[in-house]
Amino acid sequence: MTEKTVVNERVLGAYEGFVKHLKNFLDEQQFNHEEYTKFVEWADRLGRSGEIPLFLDVFVETHVLESKYKDSPGTEPSLLGPYYEEGAPVLEESPFVMPQREDEPGDKLTFRGNVSSINGPLAKTKVEWWQDDADGLYSNYDSTAPDFNLRGQFHTDENGDFEVHSIVPIPYQIPTSGPTGEFTFAAGYHAYRPAHIHIKFEHEGHETLITQVFFEGDEWLETDVAGGVRSSLLTKLEDHGDHKEASLNFVMRTE
Amino acid sequence: MTEKTVVNERVLGAYEGFVKHLKNFLDEQQFNHEEYTKFVEWADRLGRSGEIPLFLDVFVETHVLESKYKDSPGTEPSLLGPYYEEGAPVLEESPFVMPQREDEPGDKLTFRGNVSSINGPLAKTKVEWWQDDADGLYSNYDSTAPDFNLRGQFHTDENGDFEVHSIVPIPYQIPTSGPTGEFTFAAGYHAYRPAHIHIKFEHEGHETLITQVFFEGDEWLETDVAGGVRSSLLTKLEDHGDHKEASLNFVMRTE
Repeated sequence: MTEKTVVNERVLGAYEGFVKHLKNFLDEQQFNHEEYTKFVEWADRLGRSGEIPLFLDVFVETHVLESKYKDSPGTEPSLLGPYYEEGAPVLEESPFVMPQREDEPGDKLTFRGNVSSINGPLAKTKVEWWQDDADGLYSNYDSTAPDFNLRGQFHTDENGDFEVHSIVPIPYQIPTSGPTGEFTFAAGYHAYRPAHIHIKFEHEGHETLITQVFFEGDEWLETDVAGGVRSSLLTKLEDHGDHKEASLNFVMRTE
Repeated sequence: MTEKTVVNERVLGAYEGFVKHLKNFLDEQQFNHEEYTKFVEWADRLGRSGEIPLFLDVFVETHVLESKYKDSPGTEPSLLGPYYEEGAPVLEESPFVMPQREDEPGDKLTFRGNVSSINGPLAKTKVEWWQDDADGLYSNYDSTAPDFNLRGQFHTDENGDFEVHSIVPIPYQIPTSGPTGEFTFAAGYHAYRPAHIHIKFEHEGHETLITQVFFEGDEWLETDVAGGVRSSLLTKLEDHGDHKEASLNFVMRTE
């Protein structure tokens, strides 16, 4: 990179906006030098720990999404979160069985859904699914499970329907030992997220929809540390003896 | 740290303010998902590289200081910068000769100053001094010079006067190979700072004064990438053949 780099106006605007809002923050706080130094030290620890994506996803992204989409038709997005991983196994045969260990712990789940467009029915939408296991861990991250455990991608059928066989996700705490946890507790929050399934939909001519599914009755719905819950993303978990069932329909926006 | 940690209202206010202003930034930018992801990736690289203190000092701190002090009596502060190091050698004998290598490259400098209070004369103020060398490098950082080269601390005399023997600092570029440099060039800036001496004053009953001294005629005064120049911090470099001389007086604020 040289000083002759052509300036991209959109990038420049973003950078200048970032600096402007950081200045607004510091102007408002009126830190003395010791307080400013403590803030810089915390931000530096946050950065060096690699927790910036976690911090932004948990504390910032969700509120931005909420304000952007709350009055718009179609399924509300929720945060992507820090545990998305590209390249999940492609599942070809319906019902789509999420990759899992032999005797994967947890309650078995059958999930049925439909994906349509705000303009009507929609066939063959690409779906990506990822979730935690019965220990509250995500494969490819801190879990000892094989990579891509409980992660998969598939397509809906001609009618937009799909059926997944997996396990029921559980509530878990976001990482608490680093600077994000320090923030969480200093702000007087707990660190729990309600149980949820991450799901991402892609279809030509439509805005990619990244959202989450939550379950009625979860004790952390109201106080999700990441503020990701929307009432339209709630479903009921029905007990069928040896397994549980749930369903939800999703509506994509046109571009 | 546990969830029972007592909440410090000042810390909580700072954290909430930080999140609020980040939200304002994202609300304003209206990033699509790809743009948001690119921003998060850049911020993550900035954090992991350890450049957050550099970035905040260079692009944010100086403007906050300027708006806070511009209408206030006393010497204007300027940014601390990322190269301050505690524990510099204590110099006992005036004139104070900055620790330096045998045949330290650069033009010899004699600097005379006086430190007073907005209330009048002030004796025995503690002074810390740090600067770059003739290669534009700071000891204890990327330089091959011994630790604490061109760094020292000392006290003014009964009248508040002091005299330092050192070398003339030179303009240098802030680090350009990391995410801060990426920002700098994307924004269309150059990366130079005008030549300057860092100086810090401490005296009981007074606000600690951290500032910099600049030299008239420097080509980067108007476009200092860190925006640290104030007209009241400018001095003239006088040529005396085998050395140069400069002087400036400083006024501390009471607490």
